[in-house]
Amino acid sequence: MMARLVMKFGGTSVADLDRIRNVATHVKREVEAGHQVAVVVSAMAGTTNQLVTWTKEAAALHDAREYDAVVSAGEQISVGLLAIALQEMGVSARSWLGWQIPILTDDAHGAARIADVDAAKLGERIDQGQVAVIAGFQGISPDGRIATLGRGGSDTSAVAVAAALNAERCDIYTDVDGVYTTDPRIVSKAKKLDKISYEEMLEMASLGAKVLQTRSVELAMVHNVRLQVRSSFDAPDSPQGTGSGSSYVGPGTLVCGEEEIVEQEVVSGIAYTKDEAKITLIKVADQPGVAARIFGPLADAAINVDMIVQNVSEDGERTDLTFTVPVADLERAVSVIEAACDTIGYEQILSDTDVVKVSVIGIGMRSHAGVAQKMFQTLADKGINLQVISTSEIKVSVLISAEYTELAVRALHSAYGLDDEAAA
Amino acid sequence: MMARLVMKFGGTSVADLDRIRNVATHVKREVEAGHQVAVVVSAMAGTTNQLVTWTKEAAALHDAREYDAVVSAGEQISVGLLAIALQEMGVSARSWLGWQIPILTDDAHGAARIADVDAAKLGERIDQGQVAVIAGFQGISPDGRIATLGRGGSDTSAVAVAAALNAERCDIYTDVDGVYTTDPRIVSKAKKLDKISYEEMLEMASLGAKVLQTRSVELAMVHNVRLQVRSSFDAPDSPQGTGSGSSYVGPGTLVCGEEEIVEQEVVSGIAYTKDEAKITLIKVADQPGVAARIFGPLADAAINVDMIVQNVSEDGERTDLTFTVPVADLERAVSVIEAACDTIGYEQILSDTDVVKVSVIGIGMRSHAGVAQKMFQTLADKGINLQVISTSEIKVSVLISAEYTELAVRALHSAYGLDDEAAA
Repeated sequence: MMARLVMKFGGTSVADLDRIRNVATHVKREVEAGHQVAVVVSAMAGTTNQLVTWTKEAAALHDAREYDAVVSAGEQISVGLLAIALQEMGVSARSWLGWQIPILTDDAHGAARIADVDAAKLGERIDQGQVAVIAGFQGISPDGRIATLGRGGSDTSAVAVAAALNAERCDIYTDVDGVYTTDPRIVSKAKKLDKISYEEMLEMASLGAKVLQTRSVELAMVHNVRLQVRSSFDAPDSPQGTGSGSSYVGPGTLVCGEEEIVEQEVVSGIAYTKDEAKITLIKVADQPGVAARIFGPLADAAINVDMIVQNVSEDGERTDLTFTVPVADLERAVSVIEAACDTIGYEQILSDTDVVKVSVIGIGMRSHAGVAQKMFQTLADKGINLQVISTSEIKVSVLISAEYTELAVRALHSAYGLDDEAAA
Repeated sequence: MMARLVMKFGGTSVADLDRIRNVATHVKREVEAGHQVAVVVSAMAGTTNQLVTWTKEAAALHDAREYDAVVSAGEQISVGLLAIALQEMGVSARSWLGWQIPILTDDAHGAARIADVDAAKLGERIDQGQVAVIAGFQGISPDGRIATLGRGGSDTSAVAVAAALNAERCDIYTDVDGVYTTDPRIVSKAKKLDKISYEEMLEMASLGAKVLQTRSVELAMVHNVRLQVRSSFDAPDSPQGTGSGSSYVGPGTLVCGEEEIVEQEVVSGIAYTKDEAKITLIKVADQPGVAARIFGPLADAAINVDMIVQNVSEDGERTDLTFTVPVADLERAVSVIEAACDTIGYEQILSDTDVVKVSVIGIGMRSHAGVAQKMFQTLADKGINLQVISTSEIKVSVLISAEYTELAVRALHSAYGLDDEAAA
């Protein structure tokens, strides 16, 4: 059996007909290399935003099922156009909408989760050599309505299809050429990683290296789908290529299981995110049950609390408690806590959005001591105060004042030996 | 059981959100009047053209199934937005795509015909008081792909749904307020008809009074669906209304069976079309079989021949033959005949696009003699030469030089007593 390959292209890659033809060229290359190909595409850039705007204009609070009917039209357009472009290049192809495959979802319209991908019909066609052009971002809910997966859901569609088709690999084409050790806009010596484990990628993705949607990486990890992040803007038949002619595309970064990564670095990357806000409760009672009285109401309001630190109580009775929530939820979080003021018991509530969470990530730190210590020392040497610290098996995160973002990221990148000495 | 009503709105009626809200107001009015409502809508004006342009840019010759996937997205957007707008006004509503109902079609993608409308689920919901917002122009073909009905197909969708739901009436909202005795742009004294029979409407529609798609009228006739043509731009709650408040909409024109039309006029209207071209073959052999040798190849090329006239042969051996074809097919028709020149045998082929077909239409002419004679005399009095004549049970058509169009239509409109003397 020929190797099956899933390719995924986002909205900017199919923004107009020239780019759609460029995508078709990428697909044709893989077909000619002997792959059976399924290609998952997003809506043409701008389309989804226009459709979302219309639904909001129609009503501020709208039926999510109708929202889904409207916004899923974007992918319906792009798959049809790509199928036509492929046929025009002599490549057998047909478009597949979510309900045609079907891609079955739950009924959480607007942010549905994929329950199952029925790959029977799809597999039959690609076995016959026909490229399957699949609408990303959409499926069909138990009541027979179109359901969308939430913004960026096309990555998840691609991984789910790759798992269902038992694909050798899922190539995610994007506007960057891979995953870097950190943000190259901050550190010019950032290195592109050849490989990164699912676990590390999850930390990188959720921490602001927005190359892949978090859910898609989780799904890839569960189903052991190998993900290759690569650039769709490398002209597939550019003469500046490697000289191997029309088949050149940069290799990008492979996201895979740890077992595929032979030489594991202790630290793989430095991530940062400005999407968290800090809340401090002054003079909370230092007694059992107080944490539950604070975090219970927040959980009920579906607000994710990330980092938590409780100062040592000076008098054994009152202490200060600090934690972080997503910036978008800050206002709501403060309201929830103020409403619970009497049951919690605190003197004052402070909030701060002028913070950044910087993280050192690496599977290798499981077996290497001293990673956290090096981080704290490096930041201390630069005079950077650590407001909150949290750790997991494969990462150490600190919350610092936002003004130190670049300084901290550059210092840590050097300290862990990640700088690309060949770069400028 | 409450009376079921199907309402249909075209692209200009849903061109933007303000107009979609206007449509919702029309629907709400009918719901409040006690109707069970299904509303069929086209794509927002301009959307379908944009989508068609893209498919053409992607490939001049494209897979009709992919074309259908792309262009049907337009109606998907408008039904979702209208459902949201209705809900916002407190009217229970949901959108239905062709495949969800389903509306089953044949496999003639791009110009499919409706095979069946399964009204079970639809009927159940509207019995519960939920407005069904149905995507026009689309259905699902036997292979499970989206199929479109061809331009203007939403009228046909509406009639098919009305037939399946056993609707009391199908209201076609359009940018004119009814069917007129002739084109009001030519004859200021044209009168709006209160009622017109299916047969007459078919002649009016196919002859250029482009209020309703011909196929939709045929379907309405077969299933005896009463069609009301009315204007969507009468503001439903305009104070200039009849004073009956929010329920005012102009009555428009009812297209129905003859039996509903008590006082049948002899002539109902004067239609004209510039969509025909004339071909004349000079000195064709005047012998059996020659007509077959001419019209056989044209039929094989799917070119519709409309009017035919053969001059009396002067010598019994050679004659001239004139016929009309759609302007769009003229070039092809001439090629077909030139290719068959040897088998047909003619001296010269002439063509002329500078012609117009003017028709006098009326069911009453079945029982009244002299209708054709009055037409010929009226045109003769104005010095207009008749190039070709054809008649049917309910119409008389003549082909004349295009420059006489307005003169002929006005003279005939007066001659048959159709002028509205109250008008300017």
